[in-house]
Amino acid sequence: MNKKTVFATVGNVMLVEAGLLGIPLAVAIYYQESILNYQAYLLTMLLLLIGGGLLRLLMPKHTRYTVKDGFAITALSWFILSFFGALPFVITGEIPSLIDATFEMASGFTTTGASIVPNVEALSQSLLFWRSFSHLIGGLGVLVFIFAFAPDLEEGSVNIMMAEVPGPEFGKLSAKNKSSAKILYAMYFVLTACLILALLLTGMQPFDAIIHAFGTAGTGGFSNKATSVAAFDNPAAEYILSIGMLVFAMNFNLFYYLIKQQFKLVWRNEELRCFILIVTAAILAIMFNIQGEYNSLESLFRDALFQVTTIISTTGYATVDFGAWPLFSHIILLLIMFVGGMAGSTAGGIKVSRILIYFKTIWAQVQKVSNPRRVLPITIDGKWVNNTAINRVLIYCGVYVFLFITALLVVSWSQNDFITAFSAVAATINNIGPGLGLVGPTTSFAGLSPLSKMVLTFIMIAGRLEIYPVLALFLPSLWRER
Amino acid sequence: MNKKTVFATVGNVMLVEAGLLGIPLAVAIYYQESILNYQAYLLTMLLLLIGGGLLRLLMPKHTRYTVKDGFAITALSWFILSFFGALPFVITGEIPSLIDATFEMASGFTTTGASIVPNVEALSQSLLFWRSFSHLIGGLGVLVFIFAFAPDLEEGSVNIMMAEVPGPEFGKLSAKNKSSAKILYAMYFVLTACLILALLLTGMQPFDAIIHAFGTAGTGGFSNKATSVAAFDNPAAEYILSIGMLVFAMNFNLFYYLIKQQFKLVWRNEELRCFILIVTAAILAIMFNIQGEYNSLESLFRDALFQVTTIISTTGYATVDFGAWPLFSHIILLLIMFVGGMAGSTAGGIKVSRILIYFKTIWAQVQKVSNPRRVLPITIDGKWVNNTAINRVLIYCGVYVFLFITALLVVSWSQNDFITAFSAVAATINNIGPGLGLVGPTTSFAGLSPLSKMVLTFIMIAGRLEIYPVLALFLPSLWRER
Repeated sequence: MNKKTVFATVGNVMLVEAGLLGIPLAVAIYYQESILNYQAYLLTMLLLLIGGGLLRLLMPKHTRYTVKDGFAITALSWFILSFFGALPFVITGEIPSLIDATFEMASGFTTTGASIVPNVEALSQSLLFWRSFSHLIGGLGVLVFIFAFAPDLEEGSVNIMMAEVPGPEFGKLSAKNKSSAKILYAMYFVLTACLILALLLTGMQPFDAIIHAFGTAGTGGFSNKATSVAAFDNPAAEYILSIGMLVFAMNFNLFYYLIKQQFKLVWRNEELRCFILIVTAAILAIMFNIQGEYNSLESLFRDALFQVTTIISTTGYATVDFGAWPLFSHIILLLIMFVGGMAGSTAGGIKVSRILIYFKTIWAQVQKVSNPRRVLPITIDGKWVNNTAINRVLIYCGVYVFLFITALLVVSWSQNDFITAFSAVAATINNIGPGLGLVGPTTSFAGLSPLSKMVLTFIMIAGRLEIYPVLALFLPSLWRER
Repeated sequence: MNKKTVFATVGNVMLVEAGLLGIPLAVAIYYQESILNYQAYLLTMLLLLIGGGLLRLLMPKHTRYTVKDGFAITALSWFILSFFGALPFVITGEIPSLIDATFEMASGFTTTGASIVPNVEALSQSLLFWRSFSHLIGGLGVLVFIFAFAPDLEEGSVNIMMAEVPGPEFGKLSAKNKSSAKILYAMYFVLTACLILALLLTGMQPFDAIIHAFGTAGTGGFSNKATSVAAFDNPAAEYILSIGMLVFAMNFNLFYYLIKQQFKLVWRNEELRCFILIVTAAILAIMFNIQGEYNSLESLFRDALFQVTTIISTTGYATVDFGAWPLFSHIILLLIMFVGGMAGSTAGGIKVSRILIYFKTIWAQVQKVSNPRRVLPITIDGKWVNNTAINRVLIYCGVYVFLFITALLVVSWSQNDFITAFSAVAATINNIGPGLGLVGPTTSFAGLSPLSKMVLTFIMIAGRLEIYPVLALFLPSLWRER
């Protein structure tokens, strides 16, 4: 990689974070919070401005980003963002441990929503805002944002955007060029604004509506209530959030098609059909499994809908303690945790399109069993998926399993409950938030060991960036000057 | 498929089973068991002779087995063997339920060793013998045995043997022809005899030695003691069984090379190195994790060695209640459950060679990350593994995961403990035997629902036959007459 270019670009990201911290500072002033809070934001901004400014000086006159540069910039930026974003929590003492605070902010930027704060309602308004605002920033990607609105589009910046945008492919509206990145962000902000409005109409307080709209847009899941969305006891808001979570778990290309009135492209989209099928099947299976505990079909449906959409969209809100549900429902939730949302959405997980290619490949193989010479091409939306693409999906799943197992071994060393350890890893690598057992929806990650928290911080970022950029940091070949 | 040929060949298998039942009948006579026991064996033999004899009449004059025929014969034979093998248990009333008894015998033939008998010591000697003898029969495969010693080798019988022999490939000494199948069986019986002798030398009773040698040779794990090998409190036997389990989890080609004095081929075998590495790493990790509970390094080593070899070889004996070990050790055991033994051994699991190809593929991909145009060929033992072979391994893992999840969903419907449900599926699909939780080494599968037992019976056979032959039974195209 080109070290000067990489570090200078990371410096740019730090300057942008300094600017973004102005918003929670404004919130702190609005709510007339203590001087300590102002100081915390200002000090962090100062550090970011000095550090970022110095790194920026390294920028060469003319630069061209390579694939390696893209990987290094993306991976480093996300760690830097989480680390500096955590400083206000440490300085104010609201989360005294730097490891804990970094976990919390990595959870924010990666739109995981797993929290190490045992009592979230004790945090100041501005810090609650900053935490949830990081969901909005992280949802579509920080670097995509910067390059969409930066005055000059540097050559090869596609290599950075591709490293940051989720999913194996991105359809027509790719983040490959500035104008489509701008359309992407415009749709994102408009949808978020609509969501805030809709939540206000259900009678939610403005601050609550903003926090939960940010959490939904980024499919993050931080709430300002200890009992999450259950605290509002507001069925209308639960339905709106469910729909919102589904919308933000969909490929943004689909909305672009809708705007362009290309309805056929939406209706025929196989990934969308598969997503709807999985969501419907999961809701029905869970309703069937937990029906004994309900008297009203409406609340049975609403609870199943909300919990399924919150998990498959990898948001992580909760309206019931699904930790108390029977094992069958847990398995369903664990399975859809791994599926995640559609490619090109803000959701995490393995992505529906990969699962679709995976199953099509398996099915073709099973059919081949009794007739090995049969040729069965794999198609998505009528287009042929070549073997290289299939291989890439299968290998991605392999790397994913490897990372999962490694993290599970570390977490299990200091945590003796299987479902806790397993779901803690599943909920962080897939950027969901709460797991089951001791890290369930009514509890927090506070009880895990510092080493476990560091490993989970790492896999949150790895999961968000789809592993390769983060793993590449460990390759000596990445660090060799080009 | 050619229905007449398929059913006639299954008829042959039934006749062979009738003959094999003569051996437990002889044991019943030797131990002067009750008349009911004789009647049970004789009645079962009669049913098999009539059924098998009638089916045999269908055999066409000249026949050629296709791949489809091979799959159908193998899958059907294993279900038939388990079903009829279960009848003596039902008739004597020692296992009154047919579902339970079929589970027990499928567990025997597939060398799983999972038991639904709560108190194994209450069974008659001859039924204990029959159960363990099925491990020996099932270890290398029933059909391979029949074709090795049948007077005429029918054309295309390789298609049957390939469907029954474990592992993605089988090296030099393949079961492709009669003479190597005979060598295979000769080595198998000699090694089993050596094991019986060695166990006798440690002071074990002859019946115990035979039962445990059968269980080790087939990597099955049925014991005639409720507390498994722990009952003997015999460290020497524990070491011998550990070595025996490792030996029978190795590719039989290696012993052939040893006989031929081709030591280089053994030493350079990558799958063997990988197997030794995994075993050593697992033993050390577990010793490190459980050391606090031990005062003696020897017994710490012995317990870790025995439990690791019993699980990775998918045997399923136990000398300690590893269900009481900490979670980290459980995760290690769960991981090596999935790895299993080497290809071309009697062990189950995914197989070391597949895991090796899997990791080499992943590693090549990670290295490619920062340099996409680099070409990194995957090699095993210096030979290039082509993309089709790699794809087959990756897809096999995919099908395996799919089957695993389906079974887990069924079991979890009526079983509310995650580790019990998860390990019950893992222990049966990998042909190991005991799991963790309520199906741990000191308990049995008796408490599961009948539906769960049927599904687990199915996945034991699917796991033993490496899935495809059994899944193929569900394809309408398999049943079409050629």
